[in-house]
Amino acid sequence: MRRRQRGESPMKTDLTRRQALLLLAQAAGSSAVAFQAARAFGFAADPGEAQPVQLRPLGERKRSVIILGAGISGLVSAYELQRAGYDVTLFEASGRLGGRNLTVRHGDVIDEAGNRQTCRFDDQPHLYFNAGPARIPAVHTGIMHYCRALGVEMELFSNHNKNCFTQDDDAFGGKPMRIREVEADARGFMAELLAKTLPGAGLDQPFDAQDLERLRAFLKSYGDLDHNYRYRGSARAGYAAGGALEPGVIRDPLAFRELLRTTFTTGPLNWRDMPWPDHGAMNFAEGEDQAPAMLTPRGGMDQIVQGFARALHCDIRLGAHVQRVTLGEDGVDIDYRQDGELRSARGDYCLNCIPTHLMTGIANNFPVDYNWALGTAQPGKMFKIGLQASERFWEAEGIYAGISWTRQDITQIWYPQQGIFARKGIVLGAYAWDPAIIDRFAPLDHTQRLAKALAEGERVHPHGYTRYMENGVSICWHRMNHMMGCNSHWSAEGLERGYPILSQPAGRHYMMGDQLSLLSGWQEGAVRSAWRALEDIERREHAAAV
Amino acid sequence: MRRRQRGESPMKTDLTRRQALLLLAQAAGSSAVAFQAARAFGFAADPGEAQPVQLRPLGERKRSVIILGAGISGLVSAYELQRAGYDVTLFEASGRLGGRNLTVRHGDVIDEAGNRQTCRFDDQPHLYFNAGPARIPAVHTGIMHYCRALGVEMELFSNHNKNCFTQDDDAFGGKPMRIREVEADARGFMAELLAKTLPGAGLDQPFDAQDLERLRAFLKSYGDLDHNYRYRGSARAGYAAGGALEPGVIRDPLAFRELLRTTFTTGPLNWRDMPWPDHGAMNFAEGEDQAPAMLTPRGGMDQIVQGFARALHCDIRLGAHVQRVTLGEDGVDIDYRQDGELRSARGDYCLNCIPTHLMTGIANNFPVDYNWALGTAQPGKMFKIGLQASERFWEAEGIYAGISWTRQDITQIWYPQQGIFARKGIVLGAYAWDPAIIDRFAPLDHTQRLAKALAEGERVHPHGYTRYMENGVSICWHRMNHMMGCNSHWSAEGLERGYPILSQPAGRHYMMGDQLSLLSGWQEGAVRSAWRALEDIERREHAAAV
Repeated sequence: MRRRQRGESPMKTDLTRRQALLLLAQAAGSSAVAFQAARAFGFAADPGEAQPVQLRPLGERKRSVIILGAGISGLVSAYELQRAGYDVTLFEASGRLGGRNLTVRHGDVIDEAGNRQTCRFDDQPHLYFNAGPARIPAVHTGIMHYCRALGVEMELFSNHNKNCFTQDDDAFGGKPMRIREVEADARGFMAELLAKTLPGAGLDQPFDAQDLERLRAFLKSYGDLDHNYRYRGSARAGYAAGGALEPGVIRDPLAFRELLRTTFTTGPLNWRDMPWPDHGAMNFAEGEDQAPAMLTPRGGMDQIVQGFARALHCDIRLGAHVQRVTLGEDGVDIDYRQDGELRSARGDYCLNCIPTHLMTGIANNFPVDYNWALGTAQPGKMFKIGLQASERFWEAEGIYAGISWTRQDITQIWYPQQGIFARKGIVLGAYAWDPAIIDRFAPLDHTQRLAKALAEGERVHPHGYTRYMENGVSICWHRMNHMMGCNSHWSAEGLERGYPILSQPAGRHYMMGDQLSLLSGWQEGAVRSAWRALEDIERREHAAAV
Repeated sequence: MRRRQRGESPMKTDLTRRQALLLLAQAAGSSAVAFQAARAFGFAADPGEAQPVQLRPLGERKRSVIILGAGISGLVSAYELQRAGYDVTLFEASGRLGGRNLTVRHGDVIDEAGNRQTCRFDDQPHLYFNAGPARIPAVHTGIMHYCRALGVEMELFSNHNKNCFTQDDDAFGGKPMRIREVEADARGFMAELLAKTLPGAGLDQPFDAQDLERLRAFLKSYGDLDHNYRYRGSARAGYAAGGALEPGVIRDPLAFRELLRTTFTTGPLNWRDMPWPDHGAMNFAEGEDQAPAMLTPRGGMDQIVQGFARALHCDIRLGAHVQRVTLGEDGVDIDYRQDGELRSARGDYCLNCIPTHLMTGIANNFPVDYNWALGTAQPGKMFKIGLQASERFWEAEGIYAGISWTRQDITQIWYPQQGIFARKGIVLGAYAWDPAIIDRFAPLDHTQRLAKALAEGERVHPHGYTRYMENGVSICWHRMNHMMGCNSHWSAEGLERGYPILSQPAGRHYMMGDQLSLLSGWQEGAVRSAWRALEDIERREHAAAV
């Protein structure tokens, strides 16, 4: 199987011809031409950007594919295979398409084991909650490709809003501080400190006098230093007074020591146990997949699912519980239970995005090492709460979209970019990824979870929070039926030995889903893992023809 | 006249009563309650946020007000006075409302002296160009108040997109660089350098060993340093390869020296002659009025004007050219020319937003110091080009909204947040505020301007720019009829002596507009200057009644 590396520049190898064909096929007025041209010139969104999978039509041949699971990887696979003329059957255990791409609205049921809830949000278009993925970085060109292809309308999403708050009991007496103020002052002090110590700096790279002068200019601009390279506060922190009709009055800077007392500036924020980089929340939106441009479908993340649903005309079987997967010489058989009956199906190929930790409990005849590898992926946990507010009180505080941070268990509060100026709004009232925190939320019943989230949110918005909140939904993803986990991650050994095994097919059976990528928890991981499987099928089907 | 200072906390003084009344009046279900409550708690968007003007109803009395100019300050004034029962007549020299709030669409005429153009954009809702103001910072609570009150739908606007480019002939051989890469590396080197020099740093504030440890943690997180506090490159710069199915490969960092060779990092970018802070473009979106959240009306900035137009039912006279303003004991007379006839009108008050540099040429009987003060405001210049692209090629390069920077004369390229994934789009192809640059564009005819902008844009998008561009509009604001300038600024003497004089009424005549604020060029300045005048009228009318 071809393992494409990002940055490998597929244009220079076997894709040149395919691409040329594509260009010809899509010429004359298609807006896709710019995309293809950009890639042909080696100037795509990301030097390592993947080429969208292109399956050539089967022609006269008949090929059947069984897809297990209707999450994003399953939907992508069904869509691409159907286009190329494959006979596709999509099996899904739950009663809906989308998997963790779940947008909750009025009347929707949260199918959490032991905590089944019905969403009581008002029935209005802007009152929705993306309980699963909620944002797409522009660098995730795979899922963006489908948003575009499916006509999903996109709008900007904001990870970073300087008017939002950071709240930490260890700093500023626990008072919520505007991110604007904390950032401006932290930058200022850092720049001043470096400007001061520069004469003694042992610079590795050769620096002459002009370079040093430029470095000082950089620091001045970076930290908003005065002409003596001192930080005396900055308008960037927001004026203390004036600024419109009278000259703006600069705030007194916060104390540098105090700024460093919070993990917002110094480092890991509730994710110290996670295998993620330990960047402080202040630097969260610097991340390769969290920096602008971030986008989100207008009307909810499930617009992507609905786009696929519109495009698919293959056989989709909901409520189908896979009981056994049997690899054969020329195909794959499955046994499944649907409507109380045990049934079976057969495909020339099987694409499987059942969570690995569930798949280990399903009867199969996989090779021993394949089954062993399934056990090396660790299911993760995520916890979210969505709250309906009777008024968009955050907008009265100057907050439009973006994220507030706290070291309390709720970790974050997100404000909606949809429905600005409407009366009501849906706030994300908790988003925890630290397993220790989730273990404190999970055992609580729904009412208790909300009470905890409201009490903590009140610390971030002490002038009014609980009193605006009308109802909410809470979701422990590791307790959601048909999932029982999310955001799989690999042990060191799993990554080294298990992941490569599962990235290859076992006979005509492929594992996929975000779990089979290094972008776990991202829809992009689902897309890319599907493409890897589809490219292998393409290779098998057309190896002789090229 | 009352001069409200931001941060003065009006709640504690004479507004308590008014506010209480307002709360009562608006109780029971109005979404404005949260806004009032937030302010009552002293927790508004900005500690210095102005209270929206509240004119009490006139009751039985009759009062007439003449408003000169239908820009934002004129529209705000007409709207507020009309609500309070004043008899309002609005005179506008041009044929349209909005002043510099100008959204250009298919068929619109650009009324530039000597460069009259008709916009040839296709006739589609997303193909518009905000030729004047194009963004609103959330901290501009005055104009946001009207967006809200008028039901203007808002969406996020992006000043800062890491996928955009910076291009400078002095650095990286003139090659356009992703902002993502430049920023990540500049932060990394800065943090590393400071971490290295820390032991010798003479810290002003008392720092103990624990503080120093926290500072190191901060630097590590800030610059994405390794465990030895060295910068070895960062995923934040975008991977060189991998990251989805294979581990991401970190890019080699750029050379620190090279990073400092561009004004993108070190300082003023083409605005060195402007009275603005000299922050480099890299830090542009740190600014108090350029940092997120930034917003813009969905469908074009003139949605605000259309909102006012819907709400106004006062007498509006377009094509009315003021010839004389005569202050009287009990009112103000104006002579104006309309439809070839000389006419006159009289008001108990006159609110005047005619540009000061035009007002100096209009006959009047103002006090000598008032006329002198009019001359102390200096008209500014701004230049913009809007281009229609046949394809949204920037999206193929991973750019969705945001700004690219170049040291060439076009200075900036903006990409539209509206119409993502549509086929065509309107790009801002030049935005110059440096007078020296504008003086190079202004003498060119429209075709020459476009040619210059395309040639320069090609340097930022060397893989395709000109070939996508179908047509465009160019606007020199200082040559637009009925304006002949924009973004007034004050000499030091003007600010000290002229501005205070013009901030006061001359008899019953008030100057206003963004020119009469310290937020020149911002709609917020127009709103706040109007409020200042209206509050003074309120005081005069109700002084005895309170």
